[in-house]
Amino acid sequence: MRKVEVTYLPSGKTAHVPEGTTLFNAAHWAGLPIDSTCGGRGTCGKCQVRLITEAPEPTPADHRHLVQDQIDSGWRLSCQHSIDSDAECEVPRLMRTPKAATMGVGRFVLLEPNVQKHYLEMEIGSLEDARSHLTRIREALAVEGLEVACGPGLFPRLARAMADDNHRVTATVVGDHLVDVDAGDTRGAMFGVSVDIGTTTVVATLVDLCAGAPVAIESTINRQAPFGADVIARMGHAMTGVEAMADLESAVKDTVNGLIDDACAAAGVVPEAVYELVVVGNATMLHLFLGVDPRSIALAPFVATFLEPQDLRAGEIGIHIHPDGRVALLPSIGAYVGADITGDIVATGIARDERLRLLVDVGTNGEIVLGSAARVVATAAPAGPAFEGGQILHGMRATDGAIEGVVLERGEVELQVIGGVDLTPLGICGSGLIDIVAQLRVCGLLKENGILMTAEEAAAQGHPLASSIVDLDGVRAFAVTPDVRLTQLDIRELQSAKGAIATGIEVAMNALQLEADDLEEVMLAGSFGTYINPESARVVGLVPAVPVERIKAVGNTASEGAKMVLMSFREREIASEIPAFVEYLELSGAEDFNDMFIRNLAFPALETQP
Amino acid sequence: MRKVEVTYLPSGKTAHVPEGTTLFNAAHWAGLPIDSTCGGRGTCGKCQVRLITEAPEPTPADHRHLVQDQIDSGWRLSCQHSIDSDAECEVPRLMRTPKAATMGVGRFVLLEPNVQKHYLEMEIGSLEDARSHLTRIREALAVEGLEVACGPGLFPRLARAMADDNHRVTATVVGDHLVDVDAGDTRGAMFGVSVDIGTTTVVATLVDLCAGAPVAIESTINRQAPFGADVIARMGHAMTGVEAMADLESAVKDTVNGLIDDACAAAGVVPEAVYELVVVGNATMLHLFLGVDPRSIALAPFVATFLEPQDLRAGEIGIHIHPDGRVALLPSIGAYVGADITGDIVATGIARDERLRLLVDVGTNGEIVLGSAARVVATAAPAGPAFEGGQILHGMRATDGAIEGVVLERGEVELQVIGGVDLTPLGICGSGLIDIVAQLRVCGLLKENGILMTAEEAAAQGHPLASSIVDLDGVRAFAVTPDVRLTQLDIRELQSAKGAIATGIEVAMNALQLEADDLEEVMLAGSFGTYINPESARVVGLVPAVPVERIKAVGNTASEGAKMVLMSFREREIASEIPAFVEYLELSGAEDFNDMFIRNLAFPALETQP
Repeated sequence: MRKVEVTYLPSGKTAHVPEGTTLFNAAHWAGLPIDSTCGGRGTCGKCQVRLITEAPEPTPADHRHLVQDQIDSGWRLSCQHSIDSDAECEVPRLMRTPKAATMGVGRFVLLEPNVQKHYLEMEIGSLEDARSHLTRIREALAVEGLEVACGPGLFPRLARAMADDNHRVTATVVGDHLVDVDAGDTRGAMFGVSVDIGTTTVVATLVDLCAGAPVAIESTINRQAPFGADVIARMGHAMTGVEAMADLESAVKDTVNGLIDDACAAAGVVPEAVYELVVVGNATMLHLFLGVDPRSIALAPFVATFLEPQDLRAGEIGIHIHPDGRVALLPSIGAYVGADITGDIVATGIARDERLRLLVDVGTNGEIVLGSAARVVATAAPAGPAFEGGQILHGMRATDGAIEGVVLERGEVELQVIGGVDLTPLGICGSGLIDIVAQLRVCGLLKENGILMTAEEAAAQGHPLASSIVDLDGVRAFAVTPDVRLTQLDIRELQSAKGAIATGIEVAMNALQLEADDLEEVMLAGSFGTYINPESARVVGLVPAVPVERIKAVGNTASEGAKMVLMSFREREIASEIPAFVEYLELSGAEDFNDMFIRNLAFPALETQP
Repeated sequence: MRKVEVTYLPSGKTAHVPEGTTLFNAAHWAGLPIDSTCGGRGTCGKCQVRLITEAPEPTPADHRHLVQDQIDSGWRLSCQHSIDSDAECEVPRLMRTPKAATMGVGRFVLLEPNVQKHYLEMEIGSLEDARSHLTRIREALAVEGLEVACGPGLFPRLARAMADDNHRVTATVVGDHLVDVDAGDTRGAMFGVSVDIGTTTVVATLVDLCAGAPVAIESTINRQAPFGADVIARMGHAMTGVEAMADLESAVKDTVNGLIDDACAAAGVVPEAVYELVVVGNATMLHLFLGVDPRSIALAPFVATFLEPQDLRAGEIGIHIHPDGRVALLPSIGAYVGADITGDIVATGIARDERLRLLVDVGTNGEIVLGSAARVVATAAPAGPAFEGGQILHGMRATDGAIEGVVLERGEVELQVIGGVDLTPLGICGSGLIDIVAQLRVCGLLKENGILMTAEEAAAQGHPLASSIVDLDGVRAFAVTPDVRLTQLDIRELQSAKGAIATGIEVAMNALQLEADDLEEVMLAGSFGTYINPESARVVGLVPAVPVERIKAVGNTASEGAKMVLMSFREREIASEIPAFVEYLELSGAEDFNDMFIRNLAFPALETQP
């Protein structure tokens, strides 16, 4: 994908965007809002810019909104022109001051949702003016710069609204769909939901789109859990037949609907006032959400049925918001770099920031995004279940009783336990695993090659924790507590998991010819990422050797990205272009993948740590 | 609505079309097919014409399909340019010879349905080429000149089709919707249904869209009948509440679905192979079909909720064809000149023919269309129930035992009875009513003012049927049989009904400043029109006084128009422009309506009959 550079005057801001991006959207990339009320559909005529470089042929929309003199002097509607070579243009100052908020990782987001309400005082028909209600409302919206389509579900409501309250109505528009018309002025009630469908956990945020603020957040376990712990298991179940597929589809839809119901109940919002749902999730989750057999993702050559963004009618797919409300699925970048990562990229701004940054979303599938506004690459590494406590003797999920943090100092084992220190530790979760292994490395009990010292060796060196090294039926182990042990085999699992992710990072770094020193920030994303000790992540080699202050847990950026897209049509435009911007690296396609993986199984030498 | 004139060379054919019609559609009006495979969406690039008059600004689609040299010499995609002043252009000869058939009233229709099937041998993905199945199929269709949208229902089927048969698939496209993808070559199975939702009778035709031939025709009574005999009664019922509305909606949907089911069963076609339903009907029936309260049509100022053409997903409105198949509602011209009349206009070609013609669709609401390719007006006249046997002492519907024709000659009463002459006549249907009254006029028993001669007067004149004039409880009557009588009051009802229609015709004739002599053809449409004796219609003054050979029963042209639209996207384009082309005359708006109506109650003098 070739990129082009657009410069906007007078600010001098520059965007590097995929060829084919519009002048309007390229400005969003550069963080420059161009005026618009129709959201870039060529109907409101507000997004005028003047080309300084050669102006493209004017379109019919240009002719509708600009006079010949303006066209001759290079004015164009910026949403109507895709760029295929470097360009420079002048942007009038934005006269309105839209509401804005800082969201995601320090992103400044204008509150301009895809959902709009318009209060209209309509003319009443007469024998001489027999235009239909539909034509009247369309024409009234056209005056507001909106050209809308509508489905049959609207007509009965339109008939009722026009019969009431002397033709004073409120029209609700989502994108270019007219989804409702009610009698009177209902502009105050306008909600949307963003949802992140994780393989394990599903999170929904109900947002008041008038106020630009979340009013309820709900999360729960994905009801698909009984059908398998991870994506691979779910795909395996899907492949057992159409009934299994139906079970998986209804499980995830029930999960999402349950969260929407709960969030609406918690905030006292009727589901009919929720007009849009923005969905992120990995490609497999999105396939199952739409009832699509994901087997083609499971099997080589790993081709998804769809990756494109979707804009669906809620009623058609059985989602509990306004029946004509819209369900927007963000686009996926590849079969294993899904719409959740698109959300990560939106929320972190990694593709729009000059800084060179690395984002790692750690899970059974580790996703890696690396780059800056100039160029971004992404890949996925099959880490396996270790980070979720799988295949670890005393591994467990991050719930009450799990050891999530460890310090080994002065011969003491100091534990951090989920639910409080007075709980009896029951096992080790992912962040605990990384912490223990890192601490074993730092205190000298664990060698670079991953071999745990014997109790004898440790005692011979006078190591204060020598007595914690025990033998479990012939397997060496470290007793974190008398009942919770970390075995040599567990360490091997961790090495394999972090080795896969480190290899993914290496492939990405090689693609951009970068060294660890070049990285200005390393972001650990996902709810798991939030709990990882940055220093431990670096000690075990999960992330490159950068100063620890450059490693940052950024939280659930997938979910945050979905919320940003819900609240700003400009962020949605960015999201739709991310797949073209980001270069997808297929890990199994890298020729020296195996050598690299084996090299990455070892731990970094401690003296290499900055 | 201003009209413009477009001339196409080398044929010299001329179209008079509403301002805003595209060059492509204007050619259909003139009966000139311009090549196209995308149906006028600017994606196939085949509809090129060269402007001789000033060429409009090229659009992005022009630039995609034409080189600069061509653009400079005036070539444009004809589907991309609306005309707002007279134009002249050159059209390349159509290289293909599409299948065609004569349909409607001598119309030559090219078999180019809105439904298309494309057999595609798709590339199989690879690690290097991870485009989704959806992208692949869209790109393959783009090569065929089609840009398609698709809904979520397609994805599961797309996943299955791509898993089978080595990526050889058949894509089914309806308009710009990709509605299905199946494994293998299924091009042979492609069906559509046209349906005319009459207030009384619903007729459905199942058409094999490959062969271009009907394979089953089914008709039945509209299941709404128990809720009222005519449109006014149905609207009255609808206004009693939401349950009544729901009953009316499900009754008409059940009727349509029943006919589709029966037609499919009769022809051995699976409903999933039916990809489109084209619907005509009056505006009230279409409102009820979509569950829209028609009260605004019932009450002044008679504003419909929608008149526009609709393109809906079958599954969304519960219609028994392919769930992602499309349901197309033809546009209505006014609240009382519905999509059935649009069908009439398509099938008769009244708006595209140089001849001056009058079309009368007789029923409780009589619709009148008058004009030629130069100009067409339409109006509706409230005839009341007389033509359906309502408010007539021995009136009945046109079923077995109904007198449908009468000859009064040589003192004999010769009857034509539905079901055969050996059936005992039970009553008089609409065509019988017109016939008896006309024959009473011709044989001298009925005066111009509508007064039946007394038996004494008739006897005094030695009239051979004098004895058939009887007294029924003080009301004069003509005994058609000993048991079936036509009363003076019945004659008044007929006068009132025909008077309303004659007034509508007069308003239309006045608008175009025409005399009866100017009419080259009078078409009686609708199933009722088929049974009216043309001469009797003229004698009673239902139609203007033209030579009887110019009066023609044209049958169910509404249904025929729907079938033409189903079979030819070009006819559909015409249909969509008919409301803009036709001038709607509101009868109750005519200032001398009452005077005119009273004048039209009388029968025409016999000596004025040509």
